[in-house]
Parts: sequence; C-alpha cells; structure tokens
Amino acid sequence: MTTDTGFYSIIDYSVDGHDTQRELVAAFAEIQERWVRFYPGYRSARFHLSTDGTRVYNIVHWASEDDYRHFVNTSDGEGRTAAIRAALDGLTGTAEARMSGPPTYRVVREIGPGPRRLDG
Amino acid sequence: MTTDTGFYSIIDYSVDGHDTQRELVAAFAEIQERWVRFYPGYRSARFHLSTDGTRVYNIVHWASEDDYRHFVNTSDGEGRTAAIRAALDGLTGTAEARMSGPPTYRVVREIGPGPRRLDG
Repeated sequence: MTTDTGFYSIIDYSVDGHDTQRELVAAFAEIQERWVRFYPGYRSARFHLSTDGTRVYNIVHWASEDDYRHFVNTSDGEGRTAAIRAALDGLTGTAEARMSGPPTYRVVREIGPGPRRLDG
Repeated sequence: MTTDTGFYSIIDYSVDGHDTQRELVAAFAEIQERWVRFYPGYRSARFHLSTDGTRVYNIVHWASEDDYRHFVNTSDGEGRTAAIRAALDGLTGTAEARMSGPPTYRVVREIGPGPRRLDG
C-alpha cells in the first residue's frame, strides 16, 4: 500500500497572525539554506501557511529514510538547534511548536482523482 | 514569493498507536473516494503517518482555491460530516482532531536542494 518511498519531517507551529507567519517562513527558509538543503537526498522544504494566520507547517521531503538519518547523524545538530532558537527569539510575534514526538513521517497512501465510489 | 498556485487542506489527528493510524487511513481513504475525489480540481489526498504511531496528517491538494470553494459550496457537507463522524466512531482506538481553525493552507515558499548558504 506504500505509494511513496520518501521520508518527511513535518514541523508544525501555532502563531499569532499573518505577520508572524511571514517572519517564521523567512527565518526557517534561511535555516534550510544554511543547515539542511545541501545534504544528500534533500528534496525540498515547503512552507504551508493557514489562511486564518494561526498555523505554519514546514514539510521537509527527503528521498529516503536513510538520507534523513545520514543528515541527522552527520550534521551539526547543536548548531542547527541554536539557529532555530535564535530564529524563534527574533520573531516580533509568538510561535509555539506543536510537535508531539519525533516529527518524522511516511506517506503510506495516496488517493488520486477518480469516479465516485458507490458500492456498499 | 508564491511558488505554488495550489490550495491545501491539512487534516491532523492525534492517535493512540500504529493500529489506529492504519484504521484511520483506511476509513479516511474511503471518505475521499465516496465524498471528495470526483470534484473538479481535486489532485490528491496523501496520508502521512508519524513513525512513532501518534499522528496522522491527511494533506488534500486542490488545483486552486476556487476549486476548493466550489467543492465546499456544492458538495453534501452534511453527508460528508456524518461519514467522518461514523468513521471516527468505528475506530477500535482513539483519534483526536488537532485542527485549530479552518484547515486551509497555501504553500508560499519552497526551498530546493542547493549549496550551503554561507554569507552574513
């Protein structure tokens, strides 16, 4: 049933409005550029902003779990964590992480367009 | 700075383990097939399962906000809501919605692979 061999990290923040959404995207985009995007298997970081101004999701796509683990094991986690802390401290507004565990995900199923299912 | 003209709905649940993750995906995949996937502009629903068994994200991709609004305004929202409630009631385990507002999103920025940024 797996349709996707990729591996994802989903970073989820609650924020206090559209301005903070924009600030958070600018700060976290820079973190990707300085700390993440040059590791093998990195595909993209995509910033999803809720239309109501209250949430920001950054969905980071890796080619495989092995690529993600290699990044975690060989990168400067301490430097990256400090950069994230500085980015959050530098916001004009407030942002609160909503991750409840390791933010790592697999896509196990995809439903594409198709006719309405009417059985049963 | 927009890189994506699509429109997204992100459905986020906390669950009590891997079995509930699988049950929730099966139930919500069926809801896409019976209630959503045949509307114009529907692109995909992708089910993201956290590796620790505690979260499920369903990210539904529409070609445009207009397509999403057309779906909301012309579809049977009452029937769909009842089907979602029945799906949640039918789970062996527990699932709790974590959406804090209208679950609609735009992707405003994407950072692709590239060299490490070293300026500043």
